[in-house]
Amino acid sequence: MTTDVPQTAAGESRETEGREMHALVERLYPLCRSITGDGLRRTLEIVSGEIPLEISEVPTGTEVLDWTVPREWNIRDAYVKDALGDRVIDFAESNLHVVGYSVPVSATMTLDELRGHLHTLPEQPDLIPYRTSYYAETWGFCLRENTLAAMGPGPYEVMIDSTLADGHLTYGEHVVPGRSTDEVLISCHVCHPSLANDNLAGVAVATRLARRLAESDPHHTYRFVFAPGTIGAITWLARNRERAGRVKHGLVLACAGDSGSLTYKRSRRGDAEIDRAVRHVLRSSGRAHTVVDFSPYGYDERQYCSPGFNLPVGSLTRTPYAGYPEYHTSGDDPGFVSPEAMADTLETCWEVTRVLEGNRRYLNLSPYGEPQLGRRGLYGSLGGRSDTKQAQMAMLWVLNLSDGDHTLLDIAEKSDLPFAAVAEAAQALRGAGLLKE
Amino acid sequence: MTTDVPQTAAGESRETEGREMHALVERLYPLCRSITGDGLRRTLEIVSGEIPLEISEVPTGTEVLDWTVPREWNIRDAYVKDALGDRVIDFAESNLHVVGYSVPVSATMTLDELRGHLHTLPEQPDLIPYRTSYYAETWGFCLRENTLAAMGPGPYEVMIDSTLADGHLTYGEHVVPGRSTDEVLISCHVCHPSLANDNLAGVAVATRLARRLAESDPHHTYRFVFAPGTIGAITWLARNRERAGRVKHGLVLACAGDSGSLTYKRSRRGDAEIDRAVRHVLRSSGRAHTVVDFSPYGYDERQYCSPGFNLPVGSLTRTPYAGYPEYHTSGDDPGFVSPEAMADTLETCWEVTRVLEGNRRYLNLSPYGEPQLGRRGLYGSLGGRSDTKQAQMAMLWVLNLSDGDHTLLDIAEKSDLPFAAVAEAAQALRGAGLLKE
Amino acid sequence: MTTDVPQTAAGESRETEGREMHALVERLYPLCRSITGDGLRRTLEIVSGEIPLEISEVPTGTEVLDWTVPREWNIRDAYVKDALGDRVIDFAESNLHVVGYSVPVSATMTLDELRGHLHTLPEQPDLIPYRTSYYAETWGFCLRENTLAAMGPGPYEVMIDSTLADGHLTYGEHVVPGRSTDEVLISCHVCHPSLANDNLAGVAVATRLARRLAESDPHHTYRFVFAPGTIGAITWLARNRERAGRVKHGLVLACAGDSGSLTYKRSRRGDAEIDRAVRHVLRSSGRAHTVVDFSPYGYDERQYCSPGFNLPVGSLTRTPYAGYPEYHTSGDDPGFVSPEAMADTLETCWEVTRVLEGNRRYLNLSPYGEPQLGRRGLYGSLGGRSDTKQAQMAMLWVLNLSDGDHTLLDIAEKSDLPFAAVAEAAQALRGAGLLKE
Repeated sequence: MTTDVPQTAAGESRETEGREMHALVERLYPLCRSITGDGLRRTLEIVSGEIPLEISEVPTGTEVLDWTVPREWNIRDAYVKDALGDRVIDFAESNLHVVGYSVPVSATMTLDELRGHLHTLPEQPDLIPYRTSYYAETWGFCLRENTLAAMGPGPYEVMIDSTLADGHLTYGEHVVPGRSTDEVLISCHVCHPSLANDNLAGVAVATRLARRLAESDPHHTYRFVFAPGTIGAITWLARNRERAGRVKHGLVLACAGDSGSLTYKRSRRGDAEIDRAVRHVLRSSGRAHTVVDFSPYGYDERQYCSPGFNLPVGSLTRTPYAGYPEYHTSGDDPGFVSPEAMADTLETCWEVTRVLEGNRRYLNLSPYGEPQLGRRGLYGSLGGRSDTKQAQMAMLWVLNLSDGDHTLLDIAEKSDLPFAAVAEAAQALRGAGLLKE
Repeated sequence: MTTDVPQTAAGESRETEGREMHALVERLYPLCRSITGDGLRRTLEIVSGEIPLEISEVPTGTEVLDWTVPREWNIRDAYVKDALGDRVIDFAESNLHVVGYSVPVSATMTLDELRGHLHTLPEQPDLIPYRTSYYAETWGFCLRENTLAAMGPGPYEVMIDSTLADGHLTYGEHVVPGRSTDEVLISCHVCHPSLANDNLAGVAVATRLARRLAESDPHHTYRFVFAPGTIGAITWLARNRERAGRVKHGLVLACAGDSGSLTYKRSRRGDAEIDRAVRHVLRSSGRAHTVVDFSPYGYDERQYCSPGFNLPVGSLTRTPYAGYPEYHTSGDDPGFVSPEAMADTLETCWEVTRVLEGNRRYLNLSPYGEPQLGRRGLYGSLGGRSDTKQAQMAMLWVLNLSDGDHTLLDIAEKSDLPFAAVAEAAQALRGAGLLKE
Repeated sequence: MTTDVPQTAAGESRETEGREMHALVERLYPLCRSITGDGLRRTLEIVSGEIPLEISEVPTGTEVLDWTVPREWNIRDAYVKDALGDRVIDFAESNLHVVGYSVPVSATMTLDELRGHLHTLPEQPDLIPYRTSYYAETWGFCLRENTLAAMGPGPYEVMIDSTLADGHLTYGEHVVPGRSTDEVLISCHVCHPSLANDNLAGVAVATRLARRLAESDPHHTYRFVFAPGTIGAITWLARNRERAGRVKHGLVLACAGDSGSLTYKRSRRGDAEIDRAVRHVLRSSGRAHTVVDFSPYGYDERQYCSPGFNLPVGSLTRTPYAGYPEYHTSGDDPGFVSPEAMADTLETCWEVTRVLEGNRRYLNLSPYGEPQLGRRGLYGSLGGRSDTKQAQMAMLWVLNLSDGDHTLLDIAEKSDLPFAAVAEAAQALRGAGLLKE
């Protein structure tokens, strides 16, 4: 199905797409995102440069399902200075150095006093961990174990120039309108600061998928949601309870750029069309991949698949949530994700949309015996050869199973043929008057 | 269940049956069969010598389902002669040399002019391929690649003395009447010229199966159809649309004599009684075998299992369709099939009919606790031994599962006991008044 | 779940329980039990010393389902004496020496005359086999093949001082009353003479399980039935046809003390709650175990799972029925069973009752999105770490699946978490007002 990739107006190739997605990751990487605040706003602004976004600002204190929109957090600077005035820990070097949602602090203290506010990864001494404390007021620094090991007893000047105040939670949406109001939801979290695979790669893939879809005159309406994890998805769901009923298929996209093979986590329903479509695309690829059952942990499929909503939303990643050593550390930088991997994830998403768009149920109008395909120019005329081609097999399968019960995806699964081959066969048979929808 | 093979009136043994089937293959082998014509008629005439056939002649032009009965093809001679008058390619040597349904030709041409009409197997240079062109008017020769390699530039005298004219399509039927009008359909294609496994071995097995059934006072009516592939099955179905509804079980028999293990291809339904019966017989044999799902390619199960009919008809072969190098070549000669393999296929078919004939649903009349079998002489009296016999296990299984939901085949499957043991146990229990039908 | 083992009033440890169960086996071992008689009565009397039993005496000739209570058998002495007056075979040495239900005999005969009444195990020449003849009047001796080999031609004095006369069949019941009248049935056969694993170990485990349950204020009523195999279970069923309908779960306990891993044989239903509970407990143990489908052979599950009753009763053993060389021989002595193995079987039974007692269906009262667990003190406040604990995963699973369709056991199975963790999570969530029953 690779040849099915549409060339955009600018004639962009798959390689170009990969490079551009990586450039977007690099551009977004330095921003200090969180579940609220200006880093998040600036991120959505940059994404708006790729695909137009409708931005929502939801005030602090708004009740959203079981939660309340928290105060908005912003940070300008933070450091731990030694007696010589050198910044031993410096927010300017990496925004991971500050625990997300840290309250302001300005104090002088010894290492012993400071220690309870320091977070390291003793087994990965060169990496800075990523930590947050959204709902318990505290502050802290994350640093390399090696840095900590070299720190003297102090005293240190400790400063976090942050504000935690009433404001807004921000999220963005992009819609590719389709001929139907049925929606396909693509959701990415945008709350992680300088982490590339988790989830700037997902954001980059989503923007490109949206651009491809916009050129494809889709049947479904595709809604892309860029929102902070958990509270953002919860806020979107709270404000779109009616719309949620229109979501016929959905994907949470994350960890879309590492070098691992693709992993699909089924929706809570387990056998939704999206679950079967992704599995089929992954199988047809002939490459290593993993499909796992739903579990209520990971990304925002947790919210979309909560029992009250139970939306048919799965999650597509490469190496899954928390599955790689660089996960939630400074090791997840732009060098950890590649143009090729993002292009591959994009291609897979695109093929999934090809299945969702093309899946139909046809009826064989000549169901007694096989219709004579040769007469209609649909079959090789020289019999006796055993090398029957995929296209002819696809026609026989479509005819045999188009009994009103089977969709083209059912037929692709049963025949173990690529969906595209089955869909093309159906098109040819319909053209010959042998099928009706 | 081997001991269950009935000895015929003539006291024929399994070995005799194998030898006689092979003799029939050898007798039928030289005839130039096609989907119509005198070779097909002569074939049915010879089969009539084994089991009486009712012959149908369907005129050219008759509309049958989506198809039309084609013109009748007959051929008397064909050759390619070199300048010395030697027949480089000679129909008299092998009827495979002529593409089936070749129109007449009489011309002189160079090798270059002839080449577009020649078919070889470059990777099997000693074998003549089998080719046909039923529905596109053309002519051609099939030959060994080695022969072609030795041919000079020509010119050659090219002659095909064939006729393609209005006539008839011929098929034959043999019915073993049963106590019920429910039918078991056994279908063999008879349109292949000098090919032994595909399908003279199938024809030979069918004739012997019919003879065994005739002596067995069957419950079901068994209908054997010997018809040309595709168009023959379609013609039979077109003329028997009502009767098709009576077909409760069916087998397409082909490739019944090669040295490979048995392969069963399920009906389109997948879990029809025939599907379960054949699987059970193959499993109980303890020998290597293969069971595969239905696919709309292969032999006439394609027609019987078209969605309009969707008959419970599977396909039994040894090495399946197109699965051996000799397939559709001159290598598929009488030496490629053996009396032993045909006897084994026959035995398997016979055991399948034993299941179809014997499958019943009984009701345990003493369902509370186990009935006391010992009192009825059905159980060994000396307790404590662990070597309980198969017959006693079969009785316990039949009693435990004869609750109105389970058939004897269900019980054989659940217990992993041979059907014959289960059926005998049911007979014994019924005799003791513990079961009713 | 091991820490869930309640300490009894006397503060008994698991080791103590193991030792005491083994002591009970040793105490019961010498008695000559059969399906009726004083050995059986004395056995139940000793068990009564552990847990009070209600004893039933059912007269000879009583019709029970398809059977009739047989005459009562008692035996005082039996031997085969040689010419010197030495007891070559002596009932006093082992009660296995006499075929169970042997009629009295007092005769002098040669070895040749005696031979038809002698049973040995030629392949296990040092072991005495166990044989019975309940329903065919005969007599016999069981002996070591080595003993037989050394016996001269005789004559021998042959004496069996037994009586077979109208009397009673005896069985005992112990009930641990629960808050519900729904019953859990634990059934042990008590008809085997000097055999330890089959089934004194089962009896010992059952007595200890009853004592633990009595201290646990159970929801279900637990009924322990100690009855002779086959005829005893049939008698109990015949006299409790109404009560059988109350049995919601059940286990036949046997072979509970050998060194093999645990084996569970499913009830005839195959997916009853007991089947799923035992499978879950065995899986959660992380240790080797086997789960097999029901078959109508083995212990009294044959009767409980006869199609008329079809009770949800499985069978728990270590090495299963007839699965070890010592089975039904003098090798199955108290040295063949260990305190540790019985303690392990007991622990498994106990954990199964924990599942049966704790299994509930809850409803998530905050099903739209995840409820904010942190606010309720149910979730770690420092985000970003990947080492989420089992307790938190259990809460997420319970919330996600408490939709009215899933029980806690369903959730334990889907999440692959131990039932205890799931049940504790449900308790915590219920305490926080997030679940209702």
